[in-house]
Amino acid sequence: MTITLHSATVPVFKNTLRNLSYILDKGAAHAEEKKFDPVALTTFRLAPDMLPMTRQVLIACDAVKNGVARVSGVEAPKFADDEATFDELKARIQKTLDYLATVPASALDGKEDTDITFPIGRDKTRTMKAQAYLLTWVLPNFYFHVTTTYAILRHNGVPLGKGDYLAGAAAAAA
Amino acid sequence: MTITLHSATVPVFKNTLRNLSYILDKGAAHAEEKKFDPVALTTFRLAPDMLPMTRQVLIACDAVKNGVARVSGVEAPKFADDEATFDELKARIQKTLDYLATVPASALDGKEDTDITFPIGRDKTRTMKAQAYLLTWVLPNFYFHVTTTYAILRHNGVPLGKGDYLAGAAAAAA
Repeated sequence: MTITLHSATVPVFKNTLRNLSYILDKGAAHAEEKKFDPVALTTFRLAPDMLPMTRQVLIACDAVKNGVARVSGVEAPKFADDEATFDELKARIQKTLDYLATVPASALDGKEDTDITFPIGRDKTRTMKAQAYLLTWVLPNFYFHVTTTYAILRHNGVPLGKGDYLAGAAAAAA
Repeated sequence: MTITLHSATVPVFKNTLRNLSYILDKGAAHAEEKKFDPVALTTFRLAPDMLPMTRQVLIACDAVKNGVARVSGVEAPKFADDEATFDELKARIQKTLDYLATVPASALDGKEDTDITFPIGRDKTRTMKAQAYLLTWVLPNFYFHVTTTYAILRHNGVPLGKGDYLAGAAAAAA
């Protein structure tokens, strides 16, 4: 199989979203085992002026949802952004996976050089070719928020290893 | 341009390596401004049983160097792993960029379905197809260590924003 824009992005996003859901399970189990309020973990920040874990998960989800929607033209659902619990965050990840499943390969493939204009901050936009946009903007942004979620959990003692981040969901299903 | 295995990986790695070098500059400048020993920052860990920042940078570099070498067959140089200062870490990133520049597109393109066997931990190996290996193993591993480096700097008060991670090097050069 020759690589395509879809195969280079959507399965990659799905794989990591499933692993993100898996590491959230470990966070929830840790809170239960240690008998602390899980909200202390989902609202934790690595620095006072960084976003809390809930937002890290939501932004990871929306990075791929909006990135794929902009390139594919397959409209993405909008969500209320009111997730607070581990279960709600996992449901948000599932909704993102459900959306990705609706995007056919043909909606992305061949669009490498299509100009994509996207918002940066509140009042600016930027334009990139679709391949560069997905691979050098959406993808590092996505991994940034997934890894920051992992770092917040790990910093707070959740028993996680890099294998959980790389392949936890597949290992759990095997 | 149709996407290829090389264009989906090597320019992506280069882009983020340059941004990694850029955020290290900000870390070094912060240590100087605040007049603390920069080694306190380069040896910092987000948890006592996580790797220090130096190792995060080295593993990020080696993830892409070894990943590309395994698929391309273009032998990668080996380094001593003794970097301790910001300047040494930046030199290691540059050596990784220099290696990537030696890998022609033809060394990766068309190899999507080639089996790649790679070490996991000390005494195991795993085999994946080259495309899956590069995109669902090397790439998330790479971003994991780059983002953890960012998180260590940010947690310690280095004035960074996500824009520095996504596009700091290009913005500085513009």
